[in-house]
Amino acid sequence: MTARPRHAREVRHWDGEADVVIVGYGVAGAAAAIGAAVEGVDVLLIEHAGGWGGAAVLAGGFVYLGGGTALQRACGFHDTPEAMYRFLEAAMGPAADTAKLAEYAEHSVEHFDWLTRCGVPFRAAFFDRPAWEPPGDEGLMYSGGENAHPFADIAPPAPRGHLPRMADKRTGERGAGYELMRHLAATAEESGARVRYHTRFQRLVVADGGRVSGVIARSLAEEVAIRARRGVVLAAGGFTYHADMVDRHVPVLRGRPGSAVEQHDGRAIRAAQAIGADVAHLWACEAAVHTDPGLMIRGIVVNARGERVINEDTYPGRIGQELLMHHASQGFVVIDEEGADAAAADRPTASMLPPPQPRWVGDDLAELEKAMEVPPGALAATVTLYNRHAADGRDPVHHKAAPWVRPLRPPYGVYDVRGQTSGFTLGGLRTDAGGAVLDVDGEAIAALYAAGRTAAGVAAGGYASGVSLGDGSFFGRRAGRAAARG
Amino acid sequence: MTARPRHAREVRHWDGEADVVIVGYGVAGAAAAIGAAVEGVDVLLIEHAGGWGGAAVLAGGFVYLGGGTALQRACGFHDTPEAMYRFLEAAMGPAADTAKLAEYAEHSVEHFDWLTRCGVPFRAAFFDRPAWEPPGDEGLMYSGGENAHPFADIAPPAPRGHLPRMADKRTGERGAGYELMRHLAATAEESGARVRYHTRFQRLVVADGGRVSGVIARSLAEEVAIRARRGVVLAAGGFTYHADMVDRHVPVLRGRPGSAVEQHDGRAIRAAQAIGADVAHLWACEAAVHTDPGLMIRGIVVNARGERVINEDTYPGRIGQELLMHHASQGFVVIDEEGADAAAADRPTASMLPPPQPRWVGDDLAELEKAMEVPPGALAATVTLYNRHAADGRDPVHHKAAPWVRPLRPPYGVYDVRGQTSGFTLGGLRTDAGGAVLDVDGEAIAALYAAGRTAAGVAAGGYASGVSLGDGSFFGRRAGRAAARG
Repeated sequence: MTARPRHAREVRHWDGEADVVIVGYGVAGAAAAIGAAVEGVDVLLIEHAGGWGGAAVLAGGFVYLGGGTALQRACGFHDTPEAMYRFLEAAMGPAADTAKLAEYAEHSVEHFDWLTRCGVPFRAAFFDRPAWEPPGDEGLMYSGGENAHPFADIAPPAPRGHLPRMADKRTGERGAGYELMRHLAATAEESGARVRYHTRFQRLVVADGGRVSGVIARSLAEEVAIRARRGVVLAAGGFTYHADMVDRHVPVLRGRPGSAVEQHDGRAIRAAQAIGADVAHLWACEAAVHTDPGLMIRGIVVNARGERVINEDTYPGRIGQELLMHHASQGFVVIDEEGADAAAADRPTASMLPPPQPRWVGDDLAELEKAMEVPPGALAATVTLYNRHAADGRDPVHHKAAPWVRPLRPPYGVYDVRGQTSGFTLGGLRTDAGGAVLDVDGEAIAALYAAGRTAAGVAAGGYASGVSLGDGSFFGRRAGRAAARG
Repeated sequence: MTARPRHAREVRHWDGEADVVIVGYGVAGAAAAIGAAVEGVDVLLIEHAGGWGGAAVLAGGFVYLGGGTALQRACGFHDTPEAMYRFLEAAMGPAADTAKLAEYAEHSVEHFDWLTRCGVPFRAAFFDRPAWEPPGDEGLMYSGGENAHPFADIAPPAPRGHLPRMADKRTGERGAGYELMRHLAATAEESGARVRYHTRFQRLVVADGGRVSGVIARSLAEEVAIRARRGVVLAAGGFTYHADMVDRHVPVLRGRPGSAVEQHDGRAIRAAQAIGADVAHLWACEAAVHTDPGLMIRGIVVNARGERVINEDTYPGRIGQELLMHHASQGFVVIDEEGADAAAADRPTASMLPPPQPRWVGDDLAELEKAMEVPPGALAATVTLYNRHAADGRDPVHHKAAPWVRPLRPPYGVYDVRGQTSGFTLGGLRTDAGGAVLDVDGEAIAALYAAGRTAAGVAAGGYASGVSLGDGSFFGRRAGRAAARG
């Protein structure tokens, strides 16, 4: 099925129409629907699946916000838009879109207030332990390594992972992403947005002059044409589940499980490329490493040559990215008994991951090297160097903060995390800070907008938990508004 | 100036026309011109600069060919298309285009014969020392790490860097790339191809149905429209000199000197994207590290943490890629007196690089670490581990071959190669093995072809010296033929 455009004059019959047609009903689509509907226009969401949610409902639920949100203040943290911008500029990748970073940091407080107006609840409690996410319903946590090297020296750190409060997290059925989506979907529909489920976007309809005037979709076996009087917003996720696009653009993700939903097949990106849309940061991806951050931070994370890869007190997603992008996803966590005991005691009881077990335990690093297939003497050299400085409470090699630095003593436990990474794509259509899709000249394509992982967002190589729900909702809202205003 | 297409009906006057219009007169354009002209059609090359050459005339001049070429056989090497394919599959990147690799390996012998028929001379002499290129007019050299880990165990190694013979290399004025281009340009013009210099490609002309029917260019201040009756071949180089594209797609090259010519501004890629062409491997790049391979191979190459980065006996461009992509271009070469003396004795007298000098010399690794700003004890740990195995003639950490492995003894010399990398882009338009530019559906765009660094070629992350002139001429020729046949 082609992703090339259909000319408007070839559409004989419109099966539906709206002022603004939004493709995809995840976080970016829901926010776009609200952003458009408050402008007083008629909004139609089309969604491939049978219900709202997209990848957002599977997410932990962090929304990356800061600059001094009500929740940050209630938890006793001081933050400023400047500090948030400086962190993002340093952490989001070497060529992140500074115009987007600036808008996102500047208007983050307002965006948090908007989320609460949409009914999204947050509990004013800060969770301060190493973990992927809080065990209970705490609403705030560090989620990007802001308080670790090198970022702590670049910008005043503040926690910016804002987590919606769940009625009962301990059932384990649904994450906070579901809670976020539940309120955004309710708000979208209260705002008057209509929804058409089981409707799979195929291609754009383009009128003379290149203006986008609708979409072609499949509804069960039937092809439908839906007219967009003012604009189309593409909010259909990334391309994690399009194997050929992954091969061509992010081969490190090749063959890895995708942390996304299967609807993230890149079709919306390709359909826009087909009318000359530009793309950006297609190489970028986030990656989780499937183990307990409480273990990593108290031990060392080494590659297949027994070399440490990063400061283990940083955002664990950053450890995953480092392993995936620079160490062929080959990693081990090496820890001692005291560290493992502390991690176990500290472990969130409601964690959704089973407690990891060391694959190998032993006093003799040479034997562990053999088991790990690490070159003889290589792990011992790393542990010796680490311990030499750790005895002084220092880590001049990777700059892990002093509270987490302590010499490792036998017996050692080794967790095998080789290949234990999964991720999702971060690149996509090049958009401006208002959500307009840009062509190869950097000019807006008339009546076409994109947000969420269909667009290249604020993360261009780096990442922090909450950036996808954060920039998806932030720029989704703007894209909806811009489309409504035409 | 826009890169968006102009519709054919908006072209009031054609300022020139040909059956096949070729954009860019470097190696791919010259080969395309010959490939088209031998089909008996009228060919016009347009070139921004005032003469033929493109980046090819600045290149060392290697053409990567194998499978048992006449030159390989004359130098006493056995090679097969299968061995060449297996090497390329392992070395060109994790998701290289296997259809292209297969064609390239299968028809490489014929392509070498074609080059000699075009008058390109090769001297049947093999150069066997570590260097970027031979000092004299030797015609064959290892240029991709075929005889080093891991490739030597994957495919029977053979040297495949074929170097045109220069009349007098020692003048240092021109490299073998000039010699290659001189003969290809002469052949192109003898074949009847016309050339229009000082003519800068701007955008494509597209007729109803999406067929490409010409190009718009600027000739000095004047805009000219040139009709292509059968097809257009884009052979205008990569995007190394388009800073915004580098930022969006290959940020590791950001701010680095580009090993290309300024005409490599990505315009041809963008103009094709503007009509819906797909792109591939935009993230990929080659990188040289500016130092003597004879030093690297006898020493160790370490990063800013004093860790070795790769087996130092591999293709030096691979060392550059590793430093650039995985170590932030931060590297040092550490060697001892015996190694430095051997490298100096072995150094090609006609090398175009000035002899490198160690930045620091000393017996005390702790003092060297301080000077290098390497964490205390980190370089010593690396040298100790290297020496421990080197004493047995082994390198289980990075698998450098035994002849180059020897314990390092004080005094040590350290060469500072931090930031000393430069490179060029490898990604571009997605094409099929015949040179047709593909759209996002994987379908050929009618009458549009691409080759050389404007296209995504055989290198998709990996590289070997000679791949650009090799696949540029190989697939350029095919693109010209396909365009001529329409």
